[in-house]
Amino acid sequence: MRRMSGVLVLIFYILSLLLPLPITTASSWCSIKGLPLVRNISELPQDNYGRGGLSHITLAGSAMHGLKEVEVWLQTFSPGSRTPIHRHSCEEIFVVLKGSGTLYLASSSHEKYPGKPQEYFVFANSTFHIPVNDVHQVWNTNEHEDLQMLVIISRPPVKVFIYEDWFMPHTAAKLKFPYYWDEQCLLEPLKDEL
Amino acid sequence: MRRMSGVLVLIFYILSLLLPLPITTASSWCSIKGLPLVRNISELPQDNYGRGGLSHITLAGSAMHGLKEVEVWLQTFSPGSRTPIHRHSCEEIFVVLKGSGTLYLASSSHEKYPGKPQEYFVFANSTFHIPVNDVHQVWNTNEHEDLQMLVIISRPPVKVFIYEDWFMPHTAAKLKFPYYWDEQCLLEPLKDEL
Repeated sequence: MRRMSGVLVLIFYILSLLLPLPITTASSWCSIKGLPLVRNISELPQDNYGRGGLSHITLAGSAMHGLKEVEVWLQTFSPGSRTPIHRHSCEEIFVVLKGSGTLYLASSSHEKYPGKPQEYFVFANSTFHIPVNDVHQVWNTNEHEDLQMLVIISRPPVKVFIYEDWFMPHTAAKLKFPYYWDEQCLLEPLKDEL
Repeated sequence: MRRMSGVLVLIFYILSLLLPLPITTASSWCSIKGLPLVRNISELPQDNYGRGGLSHITLAGSAMHGLKEVEVWLQTFSPGSRTPIHRHSCEEIFVVLKGSGTLYLASSSHEKYPGKPQEYFVFANSTFHIPVNDVHQVWNTNEHEDLQMLVIISRPPVKVFIYEDWFMPHTAAKLKFPYYWDEQCLLEPLKDEL
C-alpha cells in the first residue's frame, strides 16, 4: 500500500513538471492548507475569468479559505466594463475605493421582468448595498478611470441568475453556478485532492 | 385622530428644537428610512464610542440599515490604540487600508483560557480573517501612523465576549451586547419610533 502511494506521488510529480504552470497554480488556490493567515493582497491570484476589462481577486472566500458566512472580493473594472445584469438572494455590499460609475437597479416588484432600472451615480469613498434579489448591474461609465471596489457577499459561494436584458422574464434568467471565480475550485475538487 | 397626530408632530417638533443636536442625530442613525442608497462615507456618522484613539463608522449594518447577514465597518486606530482582547462566534475579515499593526491571536484549544497569543504583523494592502471563536486583539503598534481597516462580520449585530487578559478563563469572559456602536440603536428603540 505504501509502495503504491509512493508510485502515485512519483506520477503526480512527473505530471506536475509536464503540466503548464497556471493549472498547478490554480489547484493550489483551492486549498486553505499552507496559506498564511495574513496575506499581501498584491500577491494574491488575480484574473479576469474571461470577462474583458475585469480584474477579480478573492480576498477571503468560501472555496479558497473555508469561510461559510461571508466572502470579500477586490474588483477593478476598466472604463466601459461592467457586471452582467443579475440577481442573487444573498446580501451584497459595495465599498468604492477608486473611480466612479453607475449602479443600475430594478427594485423588486411584482412584475414578471425587471423593467427599466433606476440609475445611481457611485463614486470613490461611497458605499451602497443591493436589496436581496433586486436585479442590478454595476458599470464603469467613467471613460477615464478604473472603477475599483470591495464587494462583500453573504452565504458564499454566490449563486447568480443572469439576465440578457432588463425585459427578460425573471423565470428565464439563467443560473450561473459556480460563478466565474468559483469554477476552478468548485468544479475541480479531484485535482485539489491530489 | 388626525388632529391628535398633528398635535404629536407639533410636540415632537418643539422637543427637537429643545433637545441637543447629538441626540436628534443619534435617533436618525437608527432608521433606514430616508437614507440614500449610495452614501458618501465622509458624511456618515463617526464616533469613538468612548474608546480613546478609535474612529468607527458603520458603512452598512444591521441596526442601521436592516442588513441581516453581514455588516461592514471602517475603523481607524491612532498609534497605541487597540481592540479589547475578545472572541465572537461570527466570521470576521479585515482589509488593511492604511498603516500597520499587530494581530494577537490565541488559536482555539482545549485549554480553559486563551494563553499567550501568536503575533502577526499586519500592514496596508494586507487581508486576514479570524477563525470563529478564536480569541484575538488588533493593536496599532506603529508609533507614527494611524491603522485604518475595513472590518466585515457575519450574522450581525456582533455578540462579543471580552477578556481582561490572555489568562482569564473563557467562562469568565464578559458578554458585551449590544456592542459599543450598536448600543444607541438597539437600546433606544422607543426613541427611534418617534
